[in-house]
Amino acid sequence: PRTVRAPRGAEISCANWLIEAALRMLQNNLDPEVAENPDALVVYGGIGKAARNWACFDAIVQSLKQLKPDETLLIQSGKPVGVFRTHENAPRVLLANSNLVPKWATWEHFSELDRKGLMMYGQMTAGSWIYIGSQGIVQGTYETFVEAGVQHYGGDLSGRWILTAGLGGMGGAQPLAASFAGASSLTIECQQSRIDFRLRSRYVDEQATDLDDALARIQKYTAEKKAVSIALLGNAAEVLPELVRRGVKPDLVTDQTSAHDLVNGYLPAGWSVAQWKAAAADPAQHAALRAAAAQGCAVHVQAMLDFQAMGVPTVDYGNNIRQVALDAGVKNAFAFPGFVPAYVRPLFCRGKGPFRWVALSGDPEDIRKTDAKMKELFPQDAHLHRWLDMAGERIAFQGLPARICWIGLGERHRAGLAFNEMVKSGELKAPIVIGRDHLDSGSVASPNRETEAMQDGSDAVSDWPLLNALLNTAGGATWVSLHHGGGVGMGYSQHSGVVIVCDGTDEAAQRIERVLWNDPATGVMRHADAGYESAVACAQEQGLNLPMITKA
Amino acid sequence: PRTVRAPRGAEISCANWLIEAALRMLQNNLDPEVAENPDALVVYGGIGKAARNWACFDAIVQSLKQLKPDETLLIQSGKPVGVFRTHENAPRVLLANSNLVPKWATWEHFSELDRKGLMMYGQMTAGSWIYIGSQGIVQGTYETFVEAGVQHYGGDLSGRWILTAGLGGMGGAQPLAASFAGASSLTIECQQSRIDFRLRSRYVDEQATDLDDALARIQKYTAEKKAVSIALLGNAAEVLPELVRRGVKPDLVTDQTSAHDLVNGYLPAGWSVAQWKAAAADPAQHAALRAAAAQGCAVHVQAMLDFQAMGVPTVDYGNNIRQVALDAGVKNAFAFPGFVPAYVRPLFCRGKGPFRWVALSGDPEDIRKTDAKMKELFPQDAHLHRWLDMAGERIAFQGLPARICWIGLGERHRAGLAFNEMVKSGELKAPIVIGRDHLDSGSVASPNRETEAMQDGSDAVSDWPLLNALLNTAGGATWVSLHHGGGVGMGYSQHSGVVIVCDGTDEAAQRIERVLWNDPATGVMRHADAGYESAVACAQEQGLNLPMITKA
Ligand SMILES: NC(=O)c1ccc[n+]([C@@H]2O[C@H](COP(=O)([O-])OP(=O)(O)OC[C@H]3O[C@@H](n4cnc5c(N)ncnc54)[C@H](O)[C@@H]3O)[C@@H](O)[C@H]2O)c1
Ligand SMILES: NC(=O)c1ccc[n+]([C@@H]2O[C@H](COP(=O)([O-])OP(=O)(O)OC[C@H]3O[C@@H](n4cnc5c(N)ncnc54)[C@H](O)[C@@H]3O)[C@@H](O)[C@H]2O)c1
Repeated sequence: PRTVRAPRGAEISCANWLIEAALRMLQNNLDPEVAENPDALVVYGGIGKAARNWACFDAIVQSLKQLKPDETLLIQSGKPVGVFRTHENAPRVLLANSNLVPKWATWEHFSELDRKGLMMYGQMTAGSWIYIGSQGIVQGTYETFVEAGVQHYGGDLSGRWILTAGLGGMGGAQPLAASFAGASSLTIECQQSRIDFRLRSRYVDEQATDLDDALARIQKYTAEKKAVSIALLGNAAEVLPELVRRGVKPDLVTDQTSAHDLVNGYLPAGWSVAQWKAAAADPAQHAALRAAAAQGCAVHVQAMLDFQAMGVPTVDYGNNIRQVALDAGVKNAFAFPGFVPAYVRPLFCRGKGPFRWVALSGDPEDIRKTDAKMKELFPQDAHLHRWLDMAGERIAFQGLPARICWIGLGERHRAGLAFNEMVKSGELKAPIVIGRDHLDSGSVASPNRETEAMQDGSDAVSDWPLLNALLNTAGGATWVSLHHGGGVGMGYSQHSGVVIVCDGTDEAAQRIERVLWNDPATGVMRHADAGYESAVACAQEQGLNLPMITKA
Repeated sequence: PRTVRAPRGAEISCANWLIEAALRMLQNNLDPEVAENPDALVVYGGIGKAARNWACFDAIVQSLKQLKPDETLLIQSGKPVGVFRTHENAPRVLLANSNLVPKWATWEHFSELDRKGLMMYGQMTAGSWIYIGSQGIVQGTYETFVEAGVQHYGGDLSGRWILTAGLGGMGGAQPLAASFAGASSLTIECQQSRIDFRLRSRYVDEQATDLDDALARIQKYTAEKKAVSIALLGNAAEVLPELVRRGVKPDLVTDQTSAHDLVNGYLPAGWSVAQWKAAAADPAQHAALRAAAAQGCAVHVQAMLDFQAMGVPTVDYGNNIRQVALDAGVKNAFAFPGFVPAYVRPLFCRGKGPFRWVALSGDPEDIRKTDAKMKELFPQDAHLHRWLDMAGERIAFQGLPARICWIGLGERHRAGLAFNEMVKSGELKAPIVIGRDHLDSGSVASPNRETEAMQDGSDAVSDWPLLNALLNTAGGATWVSLHHGGGVGMGYSQHSGVVIVCDGTDEAAQRIERVLWNDPATGVMRHADAGYESAVACAQEQGLNLPMITKA
């Protein structure tokens, strides 16, 4: 076990900053502050890795240190396989991770290849060297809640409250994101340890003693228009039906229990946590546990449907609870939508997605300056300002200082150019790396998540992310990646990543302008092609040339 | 129904020759001399198309005519979906055809999307705008036979003979390819009409009256060291066992009946052709026909195994006959190899694959000059010379004049640079387009064909063709494509295409040098990574930088 940490400061060990950036970001992905299991090279998301093994890691580092400014390093599932001559406006690294010919695109075949040392699971930003820790989760949830506010409450969530459940790895971001979005929240969680952890890290503000207390607090804070997050120890499958019975009306209902895993993820109604853990640990009890958990989900979803019937906006947060309830007999379980079609797709239609950047100097001051620059660039965007303020105050950096926010087509390249100027002028201590998640507007085909229920039925068409990767390569991004199986697992998704470096040169400015324009533009294009009117309108406003749409 | 034909000559209707080349090659793919069913935009290979529909075709033409020299057109399954700014050293067109997220990568789902107008089957060179007619088939078969000669007979097939069956669309190339390779051949074909067609087009030289006559002719020509091709009307499932009984020993045995299709493709032993056609036309008889055909294949494969036991090199030519025989009870049906692992992979290990070029002038004289240039560039390559001579003499051009030959790493870029010089000097009347099949060294993952039985078990890893496409895009190819399902159908392959234009400029020379070096080099890299020693040796000789191989 060794400790990897990106060097800080202005001294570089590669031929230029573009290459140095790849080196530092690879190292940063494996920083113990960032990676979930750095010894196994696992960054996040199950077994999402940054390099295939330590020998490969060493060889990548070595190759980057020797790479010439007109060469390109190829990475095949975390292994450096070749160095080729391209040119200075081409990417310095090209990566393909976990891609399998469809008939063989299963976990079984992947694992066989993985055991043989021939493959690696890249997840999304793990294998693409642009993971920045849990800030991304808070931000994604925040955007989702903000968009819900825009759709249902005229963009103002003050005095509103969100009802949800689950304070686990992802779900724990919900109360903080709700607060950032300006809403109070009540989160039901069945394990006291999870509540304690979130209270300690200030992701949740208060714990209620019982349901009456919780509702009293909610009433108080919403009346005062304060955004306060409240946790309640309890079972969602019991609490939600009780709230329905009482006629309580939240302003938004969702859920992030781990309903996708009926053995380890969902406490059945009427069971104690101890009983649940014991059953989960004993394979002989799994069938009974699964049945009881599914029954709990059915009751839970029925309560969500009841809220929906009262007129409360209700969404599935990607935990498969609708499918479980349907299988358990709740016929109209899919009457409420998933979060992507409901709240994220409208953003994707305008090329809005998870824009992130990292200060290679390692100095938090550089991020503070870019935060200020973002506010200056987008003075009208109140919820961006709100996010930046709250993130600056409450999000701890992990590894190299970084920031994330969702901005759209026409905005991203402006931010990139402004950062490049700041590097050029010496205002920042070192270059800035800009990247994004693969979960973005034009970069993913994933029929169970990002491309669920596309208007034209094109959910499974993966031409789009491939074109995105090819175009970003053509435009001169610093590194570009093509992955399979991220988020939803082997066989279920294809997606691409992109990273571009602001090294303060004029050449970089040209590349930034192209790439950070084109990348979100492919998302607008993909959604316009699927028939979304807001995407067509965005394409028209921004003057995109989509031969069979904006010229027709 | 309208007729499309590429313009000839030096006058262009696009901003430059790079763009004009894409336009002409798209049109050429749909030329009635080239395409199998131009009215339906079908170029070849079942339903392999060049554009999704006529509206898309028109919009592509329009977009190309308006494209600026620093813009890139994106094609999604035959539809022009966007025009973006890149730069002059980037590709002018990027294409993604028929790609589906793996779980949905079936003919059923594809056809549903196809019916909705959302997709197109691109096959390999159809959707990549670089199909050149049947010359490619003859050449591929020729290379296979030559390589067999190298492996088994010291590179000299004179006085040798090949036993095979099937004179259909693909199989009909066998006798001509055998002659080109310097061997005599005996091809068994059960339909007189097929023999007549091949006699007329001079793909086969003579028809024998019966088996004794056929053997007498073979004896005569092999003794005289003449390469003469002989057809024999008969059923392979009857003739091959008889040859085994007689102890006749060919020098190579293979087969191209359509054993992959047991209803329409294989005449059962003891059946008349009329009886076969009637049964194929009557679904009620299909079960019986299938069983009889499978039985015939079993007998046929048993005879092939018997030849192999006598020491005769024996291969499957990609018609699935081994699988059929195995299913019918021939336990060791897979004792003889497929043609790729046997003969093509050694070529792939050296980056050797189907290099093709087209004269945009439309003047056959330009191809004659490039043929001569190839001989001049590669004076030692006797079988290349032989191919060029025979092709010049016996292959009729279809559409724009074109040539194909298999050359390897270190050769392709030299040919490209030489052609570019010839354009620059005015020796040729217009630019030359260089491309290749997706069936090539570094550009395809297809576990049932090109990547069958890889030494390390990496048959299904498709990172490789994706990296190939990204690198060719980075290098500045003129157009680059990523396809799914070519050759072997939906779910079974992923592959990439590349085309680069020699317009006679110095900038083109730089791109040509990079791309035509890198493209075959990725094939050497992929095979070296899989552990093939000849690929490792080739990488070393050519000075490739493969971080964990050539530096280790
Ligand atoms: N689609 C997406 O983008 C997306 C994003 C984030 C999370 N998710 C999904 O959200 C779910 C949660 O993810 P996670 O990482 O937080 O999981 P986790 O397992 O870490 O946390 C789940 C939490 O729910 C609690 N819980 C279980 N049953 C309960 C019940 N009946 N009542 C109250 N609390 C209960 C558990 O105690 C645990 O704390 C998963 O299903 C995940 O796949 C999807
Ligand atoms: N893997 C590859 O790259 C590759 C390349 C070319 C062809 N193939 C395969 O080769 C096969 C032939 O292709 P095609 O396009 O020529 O098919 P085709 O159907 O046009 O021709 C098959 C020929 O075999 C003859 N035939 C059938 N049964 C016979 C028998 N018992 N004895 C003698 N002749 C018989 C038919 O009369 C016909 O002329 C197919 O299975 C095809 O998939 C594979």
